[in-house]
Amino acid sequence: MGKARLEAFSDGVIAILITILVLELKVPHGTDLAALRPLVSVFLTYVMSFVYLGIYWNNHHHLLHATTRIDGKVLWANMHLLFWLSLVPFTTGWMGENHYDATPTAGYGVVLLFAGVAYFVLARAIIAAQGPDGKLARAVGRDVKGRVSMVLYAVAIGLAFVRPWLAHVLYIGVALMWLVPDRRIEKKLSES
Amino acid sequence: MGKARLEAFSDGVIAILITILVLELKVPHGTDLAALRPLVSVFLTYVMSFVYLGIYWNNHHHLLHATTRIDGKVLWANMHLLFWLSLVPFTTGWMGENHYDATPTAGYGVVLLFAGVAYFVLARAIIAAQGPDGKLARAVGRDVKGRVSMVLYAVAIGLAFVRPWLAHVLYIGVALMWLVPDRRIEKKLSES
Amino acid sequence: MGKARLEAFSDGVIAILITILVLELKVPHGTDLAALRPLVSVFLTYVMSFVYLGIYWNNHHHLLHATTRIDGKVLWANMHLLFWLSLVPFTTGWMGENHYDATPTAGYGVVLLFAGVAYFVLARAIIAAQGPDGKLARAVGRDVKGRVSMVLYAVAIGLAFVRPWLAHVLYIGVALMWLVPDRRIEKKLSES
Amino acid sequence: MGKARLEAFSDGVIAILITILVLELKVPHGTDLAALRPLVSVFLTYVMSFVYLGIYWNNHHHLLHATTRIDGKVLWANMHLLFWLSLVPFTTGWMGENHYDATPTAGYGVVLLFAGVAYFVLARAIIAAQGPDGKLARAVGRDVKGRVSMVLYAVAIGLAFVRPWLAHVLYIGVALMWLVPDRRIEKKLSES
Repeated sequence: MGKARLEAFSDGVIAILITILVLELKVPHGTDLAALRPLVSVFLTYVMSFVYLGIYWNNHHHLLHATTRIDGKVLWANMHLLFWLSLVPFTTGWMGENHYDATPTAGYGVVLLFAGVAYFVLARAIIAAQGPDGKLARAVGRDVKGRVSMVLYAVAIGLAFVRPWLAHVLYIGVALMWLVPDRRIEKKLSES
Repeated sequence: MGKARLEAFSDGVIAILITILVLELKVPHGTDLAALRPLVSVFLTYVMSFVYLGIYWNNHHHLLHATTRIDGKVLWANMHLLFWLSLVPFTTGWMGENHYDATPTAGYGVVLLFAGVAYFVLARAIIAAQGPDGKLARAVGRDVKGRVSMVLYAVAIGLAFVRPWLAHVLYIGVALMWLVPDRRIEKKLSES
Repeated sequence: MGKARLEAFSDGVIAILITILVLELKVPHGTDLAALRPLVSVFLTYVMSFVYLGIYWNNHHHLLHATTRIDGKVLWANMHLLFWLSLVPFTTGWMGENHYDATPTAGYGVVLLFAGVAYFVLARAIIAAQGPDGKLARAVGRDVKGRVSMVLYAVAIGLAFVRPWLAHVLYIGVALMWLVPDRRIEKKLSES
Repeated sequence: MGKARLEAFSDGVIAILITILVLELKVPHGTDLAALRPLVSVFLTYVMSFVYLGIYWNNHHHLLHATTRIDGKVLWANMHLLFWLSLVPFTTGWMGENHYDATPTAGYGVVLLFAGVAYFVLARAIIAAQGPDGKLARAVGRDVKGRVSMVLYAVAIGLAFVRPWLAHVLYIGVALMWLVPDRRIEKKLSES
């Protein structure tokens, strides 16, 4: 079964999600700079979610680039990842409008955590489909970065109820950690 | 005539529909967990429709993978399927906001039933375009699963006016039945 | 210059337009069949616009299938066609909510007329890029069907101010005339 | 790393942005021509933004057509361009509803300026990935047109606070300057 349509469908969904995000930026009624002030925190959350979806698209790109075989489990693991990503516009809107409130901040992290788990599951499903000796399995290895991210999301969800700004710092930190595309895969591929 | 654009167009429409679904999840005004409570039934309906559209994408993928010839009838049979799928966000929103009411529950089933019929018609149009000896015709056979689904949708539409929750059980049951991609096609293809 | 991205971009825009149409079908507040009654004329207009966009996608598919060379003029003629198609959801919403009013009915026709002109211009730009001896030029010939459609749209725009229902009949008639994909192109291609 | 998915993803995002623009054209409540009058300035802004996004898609098409190697920096430079383009529907809506006000007019220019910078950065990242002797580097040269555009956007932002209509004239002027696809790249490619 070909991976081209899986890539095309995922590209489509992520492209739409990244564009739907901007619909949360409602056109203000005023016409001076002050009219933009209430939008600042929505805008900053928008930037962060744009970067997160960009990271997922980038890593998805790398993951599938190293993939040769797709099966039914991979298709559904991919759908599961897209499901959690599809909730990002919702949590972005909720946190963007209530920047320093505990529950929306935690909710943002919950969706990131589940998306992280879904990516982890997808990577495992793809590795299983390639067989244990696949290049991808050697390249991803134990996926330390993925595991660290999930721990940090979980910590941020807890912190959201104590010091919401610390949760924001963690979300930004994880994004920065991932901004560099996964060199491990690129390196192993170019070595072999 | 190439099937690549037919696949790309269908992927695009289904990707947009699956993403438009999430627009029904309106960002709540409150900032605590209680603010999410009215969204629970909308969310559950969202999950179900996401899975249904995922199933259609998956099966569409399998159906066209086994296809070699496309003609005008296939193009329009495909458009007809996309038409009924395009109504899923509407019935999802209506049923999601009125979870236990008869008419919205029946309406959800009516759209599923017509989408099922449209898929059935599309499969027949594709088989006709390949000729009766095509691999696809042998693989799909009499399409028992498709016929059973349509009967169950019809039963659910009737039940919606008596016991709406039973209709919900049937919708979930049919989704579970289809979650596994169509092994018949995969098997026949790998045999030949 | 490759035509693949032109096709992919056009597919994307048309797929999104055909899906945005459905956003005009607002989820009703009531939960019985009577709640759907005000939606009937919106729904019928939705069906007609879905069919029109489907026809444009189909014919666009045929037109580009027979194309081998793309230049800057073709790119912008294609953009021009997409521009007029992008106004279809607007006129669909306006006419759908005011089914028997003169101006919205005429407005629907104006957008169809300009889209028809844009398609005509695109076909000419593509033929010019292939050279006058191209297969496409011989196949399309004088494009009687395209010219007749434009005349009928113009008549319908006038009729909208006298007998709106006659304009609707003409819109439906032109759609039916185009529902069959352009056999002329298919025939000439298979002959040569 | 393949450029196909980068093109497909960018096509998807630009196609969605160009279609989301039209959502700013809200269906009017009236049914006569007077009901369309308040939409005129929104419509004109819509046309201009449609053309700008078309220009970016066209130039992006040309830029990547001449590209053979993609790396992580190119991926993120592309994401950065898409980010600024994603703000075009927002500034279109704001300026469209307040056509002659200073701040929305300046805001429209700010997003165009940053998009211009992002395109410039993307072109540099792509050239760097090809190596300095690449065909693209020779073709783009010092990119006079890109630099002039950025200066004109900056001038327009300043003028918006003095004579908003002059800023509009500049936006239209830059669009016209770019409407012709970049012949330099086409010429150099066909020469070599």
